[in-house]
Amino acid sequence: MLQKITSQSLSTEVKMPHFKKTAVMVIGGAEDKIHGKEILVNFFARSGGENARIAIIPSASREPVIIGIRYNTIFEEMGAKSVAVIDIREREQCDHPVWQNYIQTCTGIFFTGGDQLRLWALLSDTPMMEMIRLRAQANKVTLAGTSAGAAVMGHHMIAGGGSGECPNRSLTDMATGLGILPELIVDQHFHNRNRMARLLSAIAIHPDKIGMGVDEDTCAIFEGDDKIQVTGKGVVTIVDPGEMSYTNGHQVDNGEPIRIHNLRIHLLGYGDSYDLKQRAASYG
Amino acid sequence: MLQKITSQSLSTEVKMPHFKKTAVMVIGGAEDKIHGKEILVNFFARSGGENARIAIIPSASREPVIIGIRYNTIFEEMGAKSVAVIDIREREQCDHPVWQNYIQTCTGIFFTGGDQLRLWALLSDTPMMEMIRLRAQANKVTLAGTSAGAAVMGHHMIAGGGSGECPNRSLTDMATGLGILPELIVDQHFHNRNRMARLLSAIAIHPDKIGMGVDEDTCAIFEGDDKIQVTGKGVVTIVDPGEMSYTNGHQVDNGEPIRIHNLRIHLLGYGDSYDLKQRAASYG
Repeated sequence: MLQKITSQSLSTEVKMPHFKKTAVMVIGGAEDKIHGKEILVNFFARSGGENARIAIIPSASREPVIIGIRYNTIFEEMGAKSVAVIDIREREQCDHPVWQNYIQTCTGIFFTGGDQLRLWALLSDTPMMEMIRLRAQANKVTLAGTSAGAAVMGHHMIAGGGSGECPNRSLTDMATGLGILPELIVDQHFHNRNRMARLLSAIAIHPDKIGMGVDEDTCAIFEGDDKIQVTGKGVVTIVDPGEMSYTNGHQVDNGEPIRIHNLRIHLLGYGDSYDLKQRAASYG
Repeated sequence: MLQKITSQSLSTEVKMPHFKKTAVMVIGGAEDKIHGKEILVNFFARSGGENARIAIIPSASREPVIIGIRYNTIFEEMGAKSVAVIDIREREQCDHPVWQNYIQTCTGIFFTGGDQLRLWALLSDTPMMEMIRLRAQANKVTLAGTSAGAAVMGHHMIAGGGSGECPNRSLTDMATGLGILPELIVDQHFHNRNRMARLLSAIAIHPDKIGMGVDEDTCAIFEGDDKIQVTGKGVVTIVDPGEMSYTNGHQVDNGEPIRIHNLRIHLLGYGDSYDLKQRAASYG
């Protein structure tokens, strides 16, 4: 199986990652699924490569069959030992013992895109979700989420919002996320959909968090050491309110401009890293 | 005349500013011209109120007659002593002695919107522009620019650009401005047109400058003491690279993501101020 991957990789110029640590991977959506598939190959490698047992959770999507099969094919073609689509469409299905067993023993879990509120509504506070969270936080499984699957990573979640306005409360719909990376508020398709103002709004409302905007075909990788590593085509934007001296984010009315003084921003590119504890960026 | 303004102001709930210091006023475009006209009333007051002699320079616009008359009517109705449209359509007209004399003796100059490259091409390096710059920098006249008229204020000027991409060199077309506030790179219609990424790109390319994004119907006011005061409906966004620890802005190819580590951002609202020397924001 490894032969197959390697030859395929060479033909499409995939760089096969040498590292294989488990990680939480936050993907900004629209990751390359056709050419080098760099981010998906990275996920595959971190899930164990030829030994990977991968669970695809397509529940954010209203077309879970189509999206499930698409990722299923990709990871099978890479040579994963086992790939299963965990097509949860009702909360009760989270109790399915066969699926629970697969989630408990798999090496990689992939949340697809779709609607983050739908994913949250189906999975939150279920034993299966608790299992995913605990295994991911203990680095016993590689967990990736793309687009909606990325948005759910924080404790607070941006459920929707707008652009083309100065930061204000009505620009961002806040909800509760799945709490895998509770210290972060994640936004995705970030620069592609001009979401800086809505992330700034979210951080002004929750200044105890750090904002992380992930561009399309870009990934923030957490190996469990409080560091983010960046890979992919765009940037990961960090919005750090740690030194903020003033905001009216907690008290403004809808539509009123949000003010923030002393916000620190980093645009992290391929290979750069960020230490969430030290709140420091490093060139990579 | 003052009576007329006051009654008009009351009827449309205009707050007549008490301050009348001359200033450079950087307006983010689309300022209210119908209801309270707060920013335009502020300009009128800083130009001397009933004693104001106002020059409107509509040269950024391809419809200078229409836009010239519009502002002419507004300032006449406010009660200005004299209003003249300096409708420069060829560089040679900058030498017109009657216009030069008016520019030399007027109390307020207003650059309208349009195309900043057009305004620059007609005015740059002319004796009239030098007169405007010197008088404005010496606080001998109130100079306001809206939209394109705001964009020209810096030494470096954003002539155009895009959105919906991560910061990169091709996202912003840099040109030379009129250098009235040389330490700044000004962007306008800022959050309204999702211009954060292009301003970040501009600052990564010119990290010796400070970025200033001004929203529509919002104004950054410079009274000549190195401070910005903010008025209007949106926010003024300051992008301060003073503590930047890394950028690839000077060396990236077109399209390659721009990285920036340690950028300081302020979103300043109504009444807030910013000290360009101290690089410090204050709540107002």
